[in-house]
Amino acid sequence: MPAAPAGFELDPRIERDSQQLMWLGLCELRLMDDKRWPWLLLVPQRPGAVEIHDLTPLDQTMLTFETNMVSQALKRVTGCLKINIAALGNVVPQLHMHVIARNEGDPNWPGPVWGHGHREPYRREDLHQFVNAIRSALSP
Amino acid sequence: MPAAPAGFELDPRIERDSQQLMWLGLCELRLMDDKRWPWLLLVPQRPGAVEIHDLTPLDQTMLTFETNMVSQALKRVTGCLKINIAALGNVVPQLHMHVIARNEGDPNWPGPVWGHGHREPYRREDLHQFVNAIRSALSP
Repeated sequence: MPAAPAGFELDPRIERDSQQLMWLGLCELRLMDDKRWPWLLLVPQRPGAVEIHDLTPLDQTMLTFETNMVSQALKRVTGCLKINIAALGNVVPQLHMHVIARNEGDPNWPGPVWGHGHREPYRREDLHQFVNAIRSALSP
Repeated sequence: MPAAPAGFELDPRIERDSQQLMWLGLCELRLMDDKRWPWLLLVPQRPGAVEIHDLTPLDQTMLTFETNMVSQALKRVTGCLKINIAALGNVVPQLHMHVIARNEGDPNWPGPVWGHGHREPYRREDLHQFVNAIRSALSP
């Protein structure tokens, strides 16, 4: 397991609302603990990063690569209709990328997921199963 | 002015709701005609692209580069608190990247802009002024 880069600390709200899934080269990959949508978070392990353009060009390219790898895995595992990708940070400024599987008729479709209703945590066994499916899809 | 790549046609809903601003190497850059938020769109000129991972790795890197260049220009021109970046496509599947300037107290802050209320077109002179400011910020 790669050690967290010096000085990087995960925002406590991200830590509370999501489950650690895997460390990639740049990002910590996490699963939002909200069973309404299959929803992953990529958090670049860079202290103080808020906007994507705060990252070095190399880190930006890494983030793009990791986001797309995760997005493809999520689409494969869920068979979803559409992937939603976003870096918002209006509530939690620590830079984090949302990668969400969307389907017609899911909660608030075709509107966005943010700010809609309340988080519904997974049953532990469902969370473990989903984490394992994503880990397998990302393993060589 | 670079010609549009063969086979690429802008979705008519994007055409209707936004104003052409500039052609970049990969993307057509447009301004959403909605004065509630300073809101730009980048549309990769690639026929049939729906997900970012549909693009070649080189195009993905170009999209990242252009998105961040535009995002920095928008932040400089508006002095906004936070940039929101997203590729959703639940309504219009043609791949397009949103780059939006957000501020505390703006409509629906800190929630997302999509699906909130109705579009409020600019007065023509304000639209021209904003288009020119972004063009200048992106010119060498």
